[in-house]
Amino acid sequence: MALKYYHAEPAANSLKSMIPLFEKGLEFESVYVDLHKFEQHSEWFIAINPEGQVPVLDHDGAIITHTTVINEYLEDVFPDVPLRPRDPVGAARMRYWNKFIDEHVMNHVSMHGWHRMVGVLARGIESGEFEALMERIPLPDQRKKWADARSGFSEEQLAHATAKVEYAIDKVEGALGESEWLAGDNYTLADINFFSHCGMFVDRMFPEMEVTTRAPRMTAWKERMLARPGVKEALAMPDHTNPALRTFTGEAR
Amino acid sequence: MALKYYHAEPAANSLKSMIPLFEKGLEFESVYVDLHKFEQHSEWFIAINPEGQVPVLDHDGAIITHTTVINEYLEDVFPDVPLRPRDPVGAARMRYWNKFIDEHVMNHVSMHGWHRMVGVLARGIESGEFEALMERIPLPDQRKKWADARSGFSEEQLAHATAKVEYAIDKVEGALGESEWLAGDNYTLADINFFSHCGMFVDRMFPEMEVTTRAPRMTAWKERMLARPGVKEALAMPDHTNPALRTFTGEAR
Repeated sequence: MALKYYHAEPAANSLKSMIPLFEKGLEFESVYVDLHKFEQHSEWFIAINPEGQVPVLDHDGAIITHTTVINEYLEDVFPDVPLRPRDPVGAARMRYWNKFIDEHVMNHVSMHGWHRMVGVLARGIESGEFEALMERIPLPDQRKKWADARSGFSEEQLAHATAKVEYAIDKVEGALGESEWLAGDNYTLADINFFSHCGMFVDRMFPEMEVTTRAPRMTAWKERMLARPGVKEALAMPDHTNPALRTFTGEAR
Repeated sequence: MALKYYHAEPAANSLKSMIPLFEKGLEFESVYVDLHKFEQHSEWFIAINPEGQVPVLDHDGAIITHTTVINEYLEDVFPDVPLRPRDPVGAARMRYWNKFIDEHVMNHVSMHGWHRMVGVLARGIESGEFEALMERIPLPDQRKKWADARSGFSEEQLAHATAKVEYAIDKVEGALGESEWLAGDNYTLADINFFSHCGMFVDRMFPEMEVTTRAPRMTAWKERMLARPGVKEALAMPDHTNPALRTFTGEAR
């Protein structure tokens, strides 16, 4: 049994499947993919994941991509230390939240991150070289995201994304009034999903939302998340983010 | 054990969870929700699903919403006649496709459907009454979709949606060159998902794409889908679509 995990810094997607690996106490080989150097679009990486995106789980040669899919896979293969409820109604509740986060949260937080951080990177590349880099990106949507980051997302796009993030915070705050964790009484993949894509940094990323007063239950939940052994171990993984990018975003990683 | 399924016509979302119910030979009470009369936003329905959307599965009082979640739930509770591969790598492959269809296909086909069909409905409602109806819609995204359908989606939005549908057709065509069904050698929820949201009517909806010549493998796959007992039974369910809407769309359901 050999697990290999290809990932970038411990935040967002790369963090999301790393937490379950640690929670379950699974031994895995960590392979760092340097996004600053566009390694995710390099030939060696495209040979592993033709979509050119991190993270990737390699389990004895089986390649699993997309974090929600990876995390369900880990539950199927390593059911000890369950992060997916064993009762079907609980699992459905967890999947409801995963779907909401994947479709209504992730991309909207991500747009702001790209606008602030990837934009700096994208604008730092000379014309000609930028186009050559773009040609190496397999997914059309991803090429468009890079082009938008370089030119800057529109005010309208950013405002829509902000509204989506606010809606999500209020929805999560409401759910945490009903139960201790997002999908019920137990810590699940839904908590890990929301934490990785939004909860862990939303207060620093959008100070104008005054998240700690707007969402006190979510703020307490974040502390419970930070106390989880798997979260601690994952967040202690090396962070090679270029300091210039980190400063620009107000630590928005 | 009592199953109740709230649904509209046998197409798209409503079809997607109806097929597994029939494939598994499960007895269920069918409750028709009339979208022409905005029943999905009525008080009695909102009491069942606060998001005001069909379909909904009620299993002994447990309310499950969102078709991908419902279909995984049916696999968890009724594993006979499996529509989700039992090996974890196969299940991951199925989930990869479900995610692709949910996030990159469904809304884009849907936009054209709404533009052509729901637009007629929305423009037929008098001002004042329309706004009152909008106030009853719980999800902000859904309110926006109704407003866009009434005013008409922009050429840019429609062109983007068309490009996404073309990308999906080519991707599916490629996959069907590797295996008989979308996620491998077996008919799975991924096939049911793509069929319900796109495959069953894409040729009639976008004649300019010349789907049958562009995607011959997908065309043959569609015939295999239409031969499935569960698909036949589901498609034989009553269709109350207003004929004026059906004609307008060139049968684009």
